[in-house]
Amino acid sequence: MQFASDNTAPVHPRVMDAIMAANDGPAMPYGEDELTQRAEALLRDTFGAADALIVTTGTVANALALSALVPPFGGVICHREAHIQTDECGAPEFFTSGAKLLLADGPEGRLMPEAIDGVMAGFVHGIHQVKPAAVSITNATEMGGIYTPAEVAAVADGAHAHGLRLHMDGARLANALVATGVPARAMTAEAGVDILSFGLTKTGAMLAEAVLVFDATLAGEFGRRRKRAGQLVSKMRFLAAQFIALLEDDLWLELAAHANAMAARLAAGLKAHAGVLLAHEVRGNTIFAWLPKALHERLREAGAVYYVWRDEGERLLVRFVTSWATRPEEVEALLKVLARTR
Amino acid sequence: MQFASDNTAPVHPRVMDAIMAANDGPAMPYGEDELTQRAEALLRDTFGAADALIVTTGTVANALALSALVPPFGGVICHREAHIQTDECGAPEFFTSGAKLLLADGPEGRLMPEAIDGVMAGFVHGIHQVKPAAVSITNATEMGGIYTPAEVAAVADGAHAHGLRLHMDGARLANALVATGVPARAMTAEAGVDILSFGLTKTGAMLAEAVLVFDATLAGEFGRRRKRAGQLVSKMRFLAAQFIALLEDDLWLELAAHANAMAARLAAGLKAHAGVLLAHEVRGNTIFAWLPKALHERLREAGAVYYVWRDEGERLLVRFVTSWATRPEEVEALLKVLARTR
Amino acid sequence: MQFASDNTAPVHPRVMDAIMAANDGPAMPYGEDELTQRAEALLRDTFGAADALIVTTGTVANALALSALVPPFGGVICHREAHIQTDECGAPEFFTSGAKLLLADGPEGRLMPEAIDGVMAGFVHGIHQVKPAAVSITNATEMGGIYTPAEVAAVADGAHAHGLRLHMDGARLANALVATGVPARAMTAEAGVDILSFGLTKTGAMLAEAVLVFDATLAGEFGRRRKRAGQLVSKMRFLAAQFIALLEDDLWLELAAHANAMAARLAAGLKAHAGVLLAHEVRGNTIFAWLPKALHERLREAGAVYYVWRDEGERLLVRFVTSWATRPEEVEALLKVLARTR
Amino acid sequence: MQFASDNTAPVHPRVMDAIMAANDGPAMPYGEDELTQRAEALLRDTFGAADALIVTTGTVANALALSALVPPFGGVICHREAHIQTDECGAPEFFTSGAKLLLADGPEGRLMPEAIDGVMAGFVHGIHQVKPAAVSITNATEMGGIYTPAEVAAVADGAHAHGLRLHMDGARLANALVATGVPARAMTAEAGVDILSFGLTKTGAMLAEAVLVFDATLAGEFGRRRKRAGQLVSKMRFLAAQFIALLEDDLWLELAAHANAMAARLAAGLKAHAGVLLAHEVRGNTIFAWLPKALHERLREAGAVYYVWRDEGERLLVRFVTSWATRPEEVEALLKVLARTR
Repeated sequence: MQFASDNTAPVHPRVMDAIMAANDGPAMPYGEDELTQRAEALLRDTFGAADALIVTTGTVANALALSALVPPFGGVICHREAHIQTDECGAPEFFTSGAKLLLADGPEGRLMPEAIDGVMAGFVHGIHQVKPAAVSITNATEMGGIYTPAEVAAVADGAHAHGLRLHMDGARLANALVATGVPARAMTAEAGVDILSFGLTKTGAMLAEAVLVFDATLAGEFGRRRKRAGQLVSKMRFLAAQFIALLEDDLWLELAAHANAMAARLAAGLKAHAGVLLAHEVRGNTIFAWLPKALHERLREAGAVYYVWRDEGERLLVRFVTSWATRPEEVEALLKVLARTR
Repeated sequence: MQFASDNTAPVHPRVMDAIMAANDGPAMPYGEDELTQRAEALLRDTFGAADALIVTTGTVANALALSALVPPFGGVICHREAHIQTDECGAPEFFTSGAKLLLADGPEGRLMPEAIDGVMAGFVHGIHQVKPAAVSITNATEMGGIYTPAEVAAVADGAHAHGLRLHMDGARLANALVATGVPARAMTAEAGVDILSFGLTKTGAMLAEAVLVFDATLAGEFGRRRKRAGQLVSKMRFLAAQFIALLEDDLWLELAAHANAMAARLAAGLKAHAGVLLAHEVRGNTIFAWLPKALHERLREAGAVYYVWRDEGERLLVRFVTSWATRPEEVEALLKVLARTR
Repeated sequence: MQFASDNTAPVHPRVMDAIMAANDGPAMPYGEDELTQRAEALLRDTFGAADALIVTTGTVANALALSALVPPFGGVICHREAHIQTDECGAPEFFTSGAKLLLADGPEGRLMPEAIDGVMAGFVHGIHQVKPAAVSITNATEMGGIYTPAEVAAVADGAHAHGLRLHMDGARLANALVATGVPARAMTAEAGVDILSFGLTKTGAMLAEAVLVFDATLAGEFGRRRKRAGQLVSKMRFLAAQFIALLEDDLWLELAAHANAMAARLAAGLKAHAGVLLAHEVRGNTIFAWLPKALHERLREAGAVYYVWRDEGERLLVRFVTSWATRPEEVEALLKVLARTR
Repeated sequence: MQFASDNTAPVHPRVMDAIMAANDGPAMPYGEDELTQRAEALLRDTFGAADALIVTTGTVANALALSALVPPFGGVICHREAHIQTDECGAPEFFTSGAKLLLADGPEGRLMPEAIDGVMAGFVHGIHQVKPAAVSITNATEMGGIYTPAEVAAVADGAHAHGLRLHMDGARLANALVATGVPARAMTAEAGVDILSFGLTKTGAMLAEAVLVFDATLAGEFGRRRKRAGQLVSKMRFLAAQFIALLEDDLWLELAAHANAMAARLAAGLKAHAGVLLAHEVRGNTIFAWLPKALHERLREAGAVYYVWRDEGERLLVRFVTSWATRPEEVEALLKVLARTR
C-alpha cells in the first residue's frame, strides 16, 4: 500500500530494456549521439516545440526555464502552493539570479487569469518594484487539480495581455493529458505555453526530464544555460533512451492512464466512506482527502504509506499518489481497511 | 579506434546489472532509500570523509564543492588549463555567486605550491581585491599529469599556509590512484584535501558523480546546496547502485588499471615512432602527443578517433584517452598504422 | 504644503556647513581619512556596535545587511509591507544571491513574534525548502507604526529562539527613538538587534546611510561586501561629515522631534475632522488617513502634496510625511482647508 | 606634495557652490527633480547618448554597465591591469550574475584589436565555454596610457566584428580628452563605444559618476538595474548639481587640463633625472616611473606622498597622480628634492 509518491515507483521494464539496449559500444558524449538526436526530435515533434533539452531533475527544468523568461530584476507570478515556491529550496531564485516569486491563490492549486490581474494591480511603483515577466502554472497541479486546454489558453491570454510569458511545470503532464483526453500539443503549444518543464520520471522513467521551448527566440541561449547549470550529462544516450521508450507508442500515456484509474478507484472508495471528505474532484493521480484521526491510525497500522499534509488533531489532510506501478490489490487492500473502519 | 574520451565508453556490465537489480519494487525518493544510504556510507568509508553527496555531473560536483569553500567575494586559485576554467561555461562563477578564478601555470596541468605563492603575492590591496579562499587541483589533470600523494600534501600545505582550502577535481581519480599505487584515503583525506569532486562516470558508470566533504564543518550546508542546484535526484537508488557496484570489490580500480595499461601500450608505441613527440610522461589514461601532419592524416583515414588540441600546420598536438572499454586490438590497430607511416 | 516624503526635504544647514568644512585640503580616499574614522567611532559609540560602515542608500544598507545574515539558500521573514519587499526592486534577492523573503502580516507594518512562529510552522520539509535565517523589521515602520524597545526585544527573542538573526531597517529610527523616548542603544543593541540599517538622509542629511553590526562575528566580511557592491565611496569624508554633524549634540533627535511634533499637530487636526479616519495612532512622522473624495480634491486644489496609497472611489487612503523642514505654517494651512471642508 | 591619487583632492569651489545652491526648499526625490533632469540632459547632450544614469561610484558604474552587455554565462575581454579586474573586489562578477573576465595584455594598459582576436581564438569549444559578449577598455588607462579616438574606433571595430559590445571606463576621461584635444563625442559615441562609465569625482566633484548608454536598446532596463543595485539616491539633486557645475562652461576640461599640465611638468623633471626611468610617455595626469631606492627614500623623507607599485629592492616602480588641486609649488618642491639627489 505505497501511496507516498509516484517517485517511489520503480522504472518501467520497457524503459529499463531501452537503457540496456543503449549500452552498445561507444557513442559521442554530451548529447552528440544518435539516441539523443532521436529523443530530442521526438520531444519537439510530440509538443510542436522549437527546441528540447534533456536535464536531470524537474527542479532544474523549472529553474532553467524560468531563467530564460525573467530578468534578474523580474518577477514570476505563481500559485502559493506551486512546487517552485514550496519545494525547490530557492532554485528559481538561484537560476534567475534573484528574481522574485509573486504569490497568488486559486482552487486546487490552479491559477486563474483573475489572479494574474490581481497581482499585476499591485505593480504601480515603476522601477521601485521588480518587473513581473512570467506566469508559472503546474498541470496537473501539486494539489491534484487539472487545467483543461481552454483553461490553459485563458491563463496564457491573461499572461500575454500583461506582457508576461507562460511557463508550465509538467512534472505530471501525462496525468493531465489522460484526464482531459487531449494530445500534448493541444495542452501546450496550441494553448499558448511559451516554455514547458516536461517530466517522465514520475510517469515511469528512471531520470528523464526536459525543457521544451516553444518561443524560438528563447532557444538559442539554452545550451549554455544547461551547461553552466552542470546539467550537460556526458553519457546522455541513457537518458535519451528513456524518452524514446516512453514517447514511442504512447507508453507514457498508457502508464498515466493506469495511475489515473487507480486513483479514481481509490477516490471512489474514499468518497463512499462517511467520515472521509475529498478535498477536490479527483481526475489525475493525486488525491487530497480529510481523514478522521481514527481512520488514519487504522490505515497506518495496516501498512498504508502516504503523506500527512496537515494535522488538525481530530482530522488530517492527507495525500495519496498512485503510479504506473500501483497494483489494484494495493487499492483494494486500502479500501478494505476503510470498510472495516466505520 | 575510439580514443576521443573516456566519456564515449559504454557502461560496464556489472554496473548495468546493479542498476537492474535496484529496480525492485518501491523505494523512498530523494536519497532516503537503503541503496543510497549504503552508497554514501561506502563513499565516506573509501575516502575517510565526513559526508558524501551524489550528484549528476562532474561540472556540478566541482561548482558545488567550490561554492562551499569560497564566499561570493572570494577567489579560487587554479591552473590555467583546469576544467573549471576552460570547459564549464562559468559554472564555478554561477554556483559561488560570482567568485573569481585566479589562474596560474604549471607542468602537465599541475599546480605547484610556488604557483600559489605567486598568485597570493599579488593580493596586497586588501578589500579592493577579491579574497582568495581556495585552491583547486585536478588529479589526474586535464593535461595527463598525475600528482603523487606527497605532491598533493605539498599543495595542501601551501594552500593551508595562506588560509586557503583545497579542492580536488577527481573526475579521473581512479587513474591517478592506479598510477601511483596508493589507496583513495592517502591521496585525499590524508594528503590534506578539504573537499573532493569524485567521478566514476568516466571510469565505467552511467551517471555517478559525488562530492566528498572532509571538513565536517562544511557538511551541514550541502543538502540544501544540492537541492537548490536541482541536483537532488528523486530515484536516487539508480545512481547509488552504480557507486556500490564499482566501489565494492574495487572494480573501479580494476577498470582504471585496464585504461592505464591501454594508454601505456599506446604511449610506448607512439614514443617509439621517430616523428612523434609525447608531451609528457604517460602514467594515467590520457596521452598528449605531437604528431606530424602526414601521420595524423593516415590515422584519421584509418578511422582513429581522437581530439586535436592545437593545429600548427605541419604538426598537431592531439589527445588520446583510453577507457575500461578500450580493446587491445584497437591499440594494436592504431600502432599498426603508426608502423606503416614512417 | 509638502507632505510627500521626508526625502523631499533639503539638507539641514548645520549638515551643509559640516560638508563645507570637510572640504579642506587633501585627504586619504576610501574612508581612510580622519573624518570617516571619527564618524565610524561616533556611530559605534551611539549604538554600542562592533562595526559601522557608511554607504550611500537605505536600499543598499538593507540588502548588504541581509546578505551577511542569510545564505543564498536562506529566507528572511518580514512584513508584507516591508520596504525590502515592496520598494527595492529585488535588491535583497540580488545581494543575498537569491534568498527568499517570507511574508507575514501584522498591525501598522509591525511584525509580532507570533507571526514569526506562524511562518516557521510552515518549514517542515527540510532541505526541500529554503532555510529561514533572519527576521527583518522596520522601526518606525513603513505604515507609520512604532515598536517600543520591549517589542523589539520580544521580536528578537522570538527570532533567536528559532535560530534566526534580527535585522532592523532604521531609515526612520530617529523618529521612533523620539516617539518612545529611549536612547539608540536601548532600541538596538540592548534589545537584541543583530544588524541595523541606519539612515539619516530622511532625518536631515544629504546622503548618509550606514550599516551597524552588533554581532562581531559578522563584522569581518563587510569591507569586501561593501566594495563589491560598488559602495566604497572615494571621497568618503563628505559623507562622514554629515554623520558627525547630526550625531554630535543630538541634532538628529532634535530634527526628528520637530518632524514628529508637526505630524502630531497634523494628525490631531485630521482626527478632529468628522470625515477623516486615521488608520493608526500617530507617534512618528508618518500619517496614514482615509479621506473622503471631496476633501482630497479640496486639499489638492489648495496645493497640498502627499501620496495616495489606495483609491476606493468615494474615499482614499493617503500618506502624509513630515520632516525637519516642515513649517508649522504648512500644517496650519492644510488644517485650514480641512476646517473649511465639512 | 600629495601625489597619491586624484581621489585625495578636495571638491572644487564651484562644485561646492552648486551643491549649496541646490539646497533650496523641497524637491521631488529619486531623480524626479528638475536639477536631475537638467544634469541628465546635459550628459546626454555632451556625449550624444541615448540615456544617462547617475550613480555613486565608478565601480558601480562599471559593473552596472557590464551587466547590461553580458549574459550570466558570458565573458568580458579586458586588460590584465583593468580596474574591473584588479580593484573592484569582484563587482563585475556580482553585477553580471557570474560572467567571466577574459584577460589580455597590451602596452600602458591599453588593449589592441589583436588582443581581442587572440582571446577569441581560444573560444572553439562552443557551449562548454562562456560566451564572450563585451570588450572593456579604460581611457585614460590605469597605467597612464591614453587611446586616441582612432584607436578607440579600431578597438570598437575589432569588438563589433566578433559580435562583442564595447564598454569604456571613463573614470579619467577628462584627462584623455584634454590630452588628445578632441570633444567628448568623438572619443565615445562617434568612436563606436556602446556604453560608458563616466566619472567626475576624480576630476573635481564630490560624488559624481554616471552610466551613459549609446545603444538605445540597452537603455530601457537601466532604471531597474540601478534601483536593484541600491543606487537610486533619494536626494539626487545634490549629485546632479555637481555634473551641471562641471559640464557647463567646460569646467571639467579646464580642471583636467590643469592636472595634465602639472603631470607634464613633473614628468619632464623626472625624465631629466639620470636615475629615473619613465615607464611610458606621459600625456594624462598619471605617471609611472622607476626610481632608484635612494631617491625614493629622499622623496619620502621630504614628505612626498605617492604609491609604490612594485618594489624590486634597488629600484621601485611608483605612481604619481596629479589633480585639479595640485599646486605648482608642490611639483616644484618635489623637483627640488630630485635636483638635490643625484
